[in-house]
Amino acid sequence: MSLLYLDYNRTTPLAPSVLEAMQPYWATHYMLPGQEHAHAHAVGEALENARENIAAMAGCESFEVVFTSGGTEANNLGILGLLAAAEPGHVLVSELEHESVLGPLSDLPAKDSRWQIETVPCEPTGMIDPAKVEAMLRPQTRLVCLQGANPILGTLQPVREVADRCHNRGVVLHCDATQMFGKVPVNVKHLRADTVAISGHKFYGPKGSGAIYVRRGLKLDPITFGEPREMGLRPGAENIPGCIGLGTAASLAERYCVEANNQLSELRDRFVEHLRCQMKRPPRVLCEESPRLPNTVALELPGEARRIHETARELAVATAQSACPPDEFTRSLRAIGCSESQIGRTMRVSLGWTTSREQVERAAGLIAEAFDI
Amino acid sequence: MSLLYLDYNRTTPLAPSVLEAMQPYWATHYMLPGQEHAHAHAVGEALENARENIAAMAGCESFEVVFTSGGTEANNLGILGLLAAAEPGHVLVSELEHESVLGPLSDLPAKDSRWQIETVPCEPTGMIDPAKVEAMLRPQTRLVCLQGANPILGTLQPVREVADRCHNRGVVLHCDATQMFGKVPVNVKHLRADTVAISGHKFYGPKGSGAIYVRRGLKLDPITFGEPREMGLRPGAENIPGCIGLGTAASLAERYCVEANNQLSELRDRFVEHLRCQMKRPPRVLCEESPRLPNTVALELPGEARRIHETARELAVATAQSACPPDEFTRSLRAIGCSESQIGRTMRVSLGWTTSREQVERAAGLIAEAFDI
Repeated sequence: MSLLYLDYNRTTPLAPSVLEAMQPYWATHYMLPGQEHAHAHAVGEALENARENIAAMAGCESFEVVFTSGGTEANNLGILGLLAAAEPGHVLVSELEHESVLGPLSDLPAKDSRWQIETVPCEPTGMIDPAKVEAMLRPQTRLVCLQGANPILGTLQPVREVADRCHNRGVVLHCDATQMFGKVPVNVKHLRADTVAISGHKFYGPKGSGAIYVRRGLKLDPITFGEPREMGLRPGAENIPGCIGLGTAASLAERYCVEANNQLSELRDRFVEHLRCQMKRPPRVLCEESPRLPNTVALELPGEARRIHETARELAVATAQSACPPDEFTRSLRAIGCSESQIGRTMRVSLGWTTSREQVERAAGLIAEAFDI
Repeated sequence: MSLLYLDYNRTTPLAPSVLEAMQPYWATHYMLPGQEHAHAHAVGEALENARENIAAMAGCESFEVVFTSGGTEANNLGILGLLAAAEPGHVLVSELEHESVLGPLSDLPAKDSRWQIETVPCEPTGMIDPAKVEAMLRPQTRLVCLQGANPILGTLQPVREVADRCHNRGVVLHCDATQMFGKVPVNVKHLRADTVAISGHKFYGPKGSGAIYVRRGLKLDPITFGEPREMGLRPGAENIPGCIGLGTAASLAERYCVEANNQLSELRDRFVEHLRCQMKRPPRVLCEESPRLPNTVALELPGEARRIHETARELAVATAQSACPPDEFTRSLRAIGCSESQIGRTMRVSLGWTTSREQVERAAGLIAEAFDI
């Protein structure tokens, strides 16, 4: 059965040029940079070149880029690495965050009662209100965590506005921007976040690759320990092919993000239009009035969304059914006030660079069929 | 310049069949197991199949295998994951351990003064004495860390004997066995270690892949946090190609380890014999009388070992010069009583599955030339 994949916010296939860039580093240039040999030195140069590509995509200096094993480790390092180097205090975290942002925080108060974790509620629009964040800052606030874009609703958060308010009070901002790269232009200096998480497999890079931007001068501690690598922040033999693949994916994203932005939003709107034309009871687009990722749409359908998995088996989309509980799918929808029954009727569609007009039309047809019997 | 690579204990090239096994999972079967789709379910099955291959290599159950991003993370998880779930107390660590074993322990007493870390000294033979470990156990000892094989000296440690003594006193044993797989048969149940670290790139698997054996019933806490994966011990989207590559490397190692053992030790002995025949002042083999990895030999040369990097530039071997300080190279040699000048004269040669007779003879010739001017 041929797959109609519209679940690119979950994971993406590797871009052909990324695969090509990685290939020589598995069995030919397999050495590690530390080895005393011209072949190893060449690998070290390729690694630094990949770091520069990531810096170019993110708008920072290459020494501000630390390779990790993925977005989860990047979020953990940004949060636990900062807090390990800080006096215990108060942390603000948006209600919309991913498990890899909430998880590192949730245990802290049990380990040390001086840590207080507080949640910033989301508006019904799917947005975090910067004024609300500001009002919740305390003299002891050490960190605010705000994602760049919500993977379910697609809402683009006011990171810069929140960062400015944080910095006025001497508070550090961590931004999980894993859903932004490859979809919209991202410049970390414009976002003004202090640390920014990057995940390779979200933008046509390798699974098992990721990075974190750490603003020059910011003090983090490593969270795993071993042979010092990556400016002392991440030990262990470098995943050379993974880093090089991530660098190539970053070059693609940098070159393609403006075009992708336009193309994806046009396809997404076409998809919604088709659904509205074809369905007797047309779906409702969630957070339609908010700034959103161009490739993402969350739709409340006229019936149980899981029906799609049963009737349109070739279609890969996200529903509460296809998500592992407790999942950001359910949490994101609850955060904008959806009832359990609304959550059950909601589907998230996320398009990719290779999604075609024909594919979104076919997907709209399959969904219309599933609900208009 | 064609490379004469004899540094397989540092890293190995990917085996061709490992690369082949990984390829479909980059851009064709790129989905993640959690997605609600037959394609994703097939990926989940491939992942579990890889886990079974690792379990078969290591002689354990597949649910006792947790994927990590490499050996460093495996050692960190085995140690910090265990200690996070334990009452603060005493830890014994052998003098020969890797930075990724020493690193997680070194900060603990500063964070909580109830932790005490004590080092078990190495014998001049390059061996850890089980009786000495036993004598150092205390009622509050929570963990003993002992590597399976030393990467520099090649000495195979008496893990089982130490494990038995630990278990008699209710103490857990973590074994960094990253240097054993692919070189000698390893059965974790025979070793009787409670946790065992595995690193993919040390035995022809992918860089950025690793695993840890966690004995059934042993309580560990995760050390990074996010969407629950890997029996709750390791969050984050699975590095599917990496895990599948590791599984294939494990199958190779399982099939090949007895043959590799014989072949590698024969080549190593031939190499040493050639050196002894060709050099006016023949080198001294360190720890020659101790049980050692079949592929590894540490040699004290008649002059500065770094001369090799200058005169035989095609030859990749390990010296104090080619190691990042503070490094296990220097530490391992100090542990058996080598002076700084002896350390400067020492070279570690480590052979691989594809090393040929011709290669070891050529390497011996180059080394003899470098020192017999």
